[in-house]
Amino acid sequence: MAKINSHFSKLCSNYLFPEIQKRVASFKEAADPSLSFLNLGIGDVSKPIAPPIAEAIAVAAEKMSQKESIRGYGPENGYAFLRQAIFEDTYSNLDLSADEIFISDGSKCDTANILDIFSQDNVVAIADPSYPVYVDSTVMSGRSGHANQQGQYEGIVYLPCTKESNFLALPPSRHCDLIYLCSPNNPTGTAFSRKQLESWVSYAHEHQAIIFFDTAYRSFITDQTLPKSIFEIPGAHEVAIEFHSFSKSAGFTGLRCAYTVISKRLMALDSQKKQSIWKLWKRRQSSKFGGLSYITQCAAKASLSKKARQYIKEDIQNYMQGCQRLKKALEDLNYTCYGGINAPYLWCETPQDMSSWDFFDLLLQRVQLITVPGRGFGPAGEGYVRLSAFATEKTIDEAISRLMQLHVVSPSICC
Amino acid sequence: MAKINSHFSKLCSNYLFPEIQKRVASFKEAADPSLSFLNLGIGDVSKPIAPPIAEAIAVAAEKMSQKESIRGYGPENGYAFLRQAIFEDTYSNLDLSADEIFISDGSKCDTANILDIFSQDNVVAIADPSYPVYVDSTVMSGRSGHANQQGQYEGIVYLPCTKESNFLALPPSRHCDLIYLCSPNNPTGTAFSRKQLESWVSYAHEHQAIIFFDTAYRSFITDQTLPKSIFEIPGAHEVAIEFHSFSKSAGFTGLRCAYTVISKRLMALDSQKKQSIWKLWKRRQSSKFGGLSYITQCAAKASLSKKARQYIKEDIQNYMQGCQRLKKALEDLNYTCYGGINAPYLWCETPQDMSSWDFFDLLLQRVQLITVPGRGFGPAGEGYVRLSAFATEKTIDEAISRLMQLHVVSPSICC
Repeated sequence: MAKINSHFSKLCSNYLFPEIQKRVASFKEAADPSLSFLNLGIGDVSKPIAPPIAEAIAVAAEKMSQKESIRGYGPENGYAFLRQAIFEDTYSNLDLSADEIFISDGSKCDTANILDIFSQDNVVAIADPSYPVYVDSTVMSGRSGHANQQGQYEGIVYLPCTKESNFLALPPSRHCDLIYLCSPNNPTGTAFSRKQLESWVSYAHEHQAIIFFDTAYRSFITDQTLPKSIFEIPGAHEVAIEFHSFSKSAGFTGLRCAYTVISKRLMALDSQKKQSIWKLWKRRQSSKFGGLSYITQCAAKASLSKKARQYIKEDIQNYMQGCQRLKKALEDLNYTCYGGINAPYLWCETPQDMSSWDFFDLLLQRVQLITVPGRGFGPAGEGYVRLSAFATEKTIDEAISRLMQLHVVSPSICC
Repeated sequence: MAKINSHFSKLCSNYLFPEIQKRVASFKEAADPSLSFLNLGIGDVSKPIAPPIAEAIAVAAEKMSQKESIRGYGPENGYAFLRQAIFEDTYSNLDLSADEIFISDGSKCDTANILDIFSQDNVVAIADPSYPVYVDSTVMSGRSGHANQQGQYEGIVYLPCTKESNFLALPPSRHCDLIYLCSPNNPTGTAFSRKQLESWVSYAHEHQAIIFFDTAYRSFITDQTLPKSIFEIPGAHEVAIEFHSFSKSAGFTGLRCAYTVISKRLMALDSQKKQSIWKLWKRRQSSKFGGLSYITQCAAKASLSKKARQYIKEDIQNYMQGCQRLKKALEDLNYTCYGGINAPYLWCETPQDMSSWDFFDLLLQRVQLITVPGRGFGPAGEGYVRLSAFATEKTIDEAISRLMQLHVVSPSICC
């Protein structure tokens, strides 16, 4: 009989965001239908795409409807026009070339699929808390044992992001082969300094490890001394793969475009021989990915234009202003909040040692504010909730007002 | 040190289509620059998308650029509006529901990724010749041994599609767990009868196997007695997963939209317990796929409208007329051709026992006609080339004229 991949049954819970949707839906069903909900949960953009992007889509659609200019299958790794535009925008001074950039439909897919090209017996290390896709895809692919009572899977090396480490992962004392890092870090909202990232690159060289470096939130970095790409660090080309997405940097959550950067200098072992990771990823994508929509690639290119960048810059400033207001309001109410300076996420301590799911439930049920329980991002996320500032000004204002109201009604809830 | 997935090194050659592009590019480089090339190779559409589809894209882009109507992250499994439209279009009489349809960005991804949810030790059977993704993803995922001299990978059960079986795969005498089938079959251009498909469903029940049924070309079926979905066969719901793509049925090769249909009744074994394949695929997609662009989903929905269907129907008729003309011309030149009646592909015997790559080279070098060597689709494809009729009338005319010319200059080349 056909047998399933039994590693799936090791997964402790449903994927986080559908689980949150389920809980919200179940509360809504029983609640007063006049209640209005504020979503500071999933990190989803609330601002429209910039007009030059919409125009580029309409132009591309028009081209596709004319026999002289239709585009069928594109190159699996993306059109040269987009790879070149990304190269010029971000990587031209970082000792890389346009063909080291692979276009895809999302960093979610890329950070999960990258495991395909690596052996099963690599030791995987993952920042804790982190974007759930890293752990889930590691478990589903059979690179872990079962979870213990704390929800930590045997075999995965957890890199705790605690108050002491500014909620960032530090190199462990033990050996690891593949390391998932994200900076600015989702969900904690803090970002690596150059020195911290140098210590990671140096760890990776020492252990001949490879860093999977997710930069989904780099456009939100305000401190200009912080690195935006791992390739700013000397030696990173031989030890790192970088992921970036247009989702947060250009409002593409509903459009889907991302890319993976792999230097041709990055190698890994196959029995005794070293093999090019660039070649392997190219082969993997050629065989298992059909390329990204021509129209979306035109949209992504348009998002890098001077005109679109002006809109996007304003949107990002606007999100970050909302983030500051929310942070200040929470602090005024005596909550302890981290992040929110170089990332659009606030990492807020739960009051009175409440569990993160309990505080999530309380905010949902008492003031209809949807957050994400820190525990959903990993065991070390317990005791926190993440608040996303990807919201309209109106939503942020209303959230602040409801939090203040909650404080008046139940002052004991605040810290 | 980080170690690679060594199964990749078992792959005999590059992915077929990039390999063809490489050979064509290398010939072009050395050739007279005035030569013009005719592409009957990759099955890529040449007709523009229907105007109602382009309009739907422009409307969706406009919505995304307005704050009242933007769409961010969509459901990983697709918007209800599209799942419902597909359900009504194709599956409403087949004992399925809209939530058994999972939207994705391509059947290439789906037919490769489906292996993720199955155990490594399933025996995989694959029609030979077939779309290379089935074999490549089976090998890359470690479900085969090395290839022998004939290019057959140890452990994969090859289902030969020969002249005797009308170039279709027949149930084998031995046990298999997972079976890749395609009907109408790519590359041979022939389609299963109801009776043949019944024998597959019955084989799958007997062996508790699961059929991966790819229907990418079903819109080209002209013989109305042939099944277009495996779910037309009683008992298929418990043993089959169906894949379909908008690529060929609505000209979406450059837009990317497809879907996978899994009945909630389909189960497979995990140790001693039976598990729902529907749930597993849902979990896999939630964790590793970010959902398809809202805009593309609007386009796919528009392609199912009455207005768009009229355009698409004409396009398909037009492709098939070209296919008939090409077939007749080849037959007049004494080539032996199969397929081309219920699929837009001709499966043409090479003359004088030439190898398929040799005949590919000859057609490329002598008349600049790009085809696909049958060998690229599997060992049993040796001795054939595939000609795609996804071409403009002009290209088909010119191809016919060049083939005739070749016959005049070198009559011995024809059979």
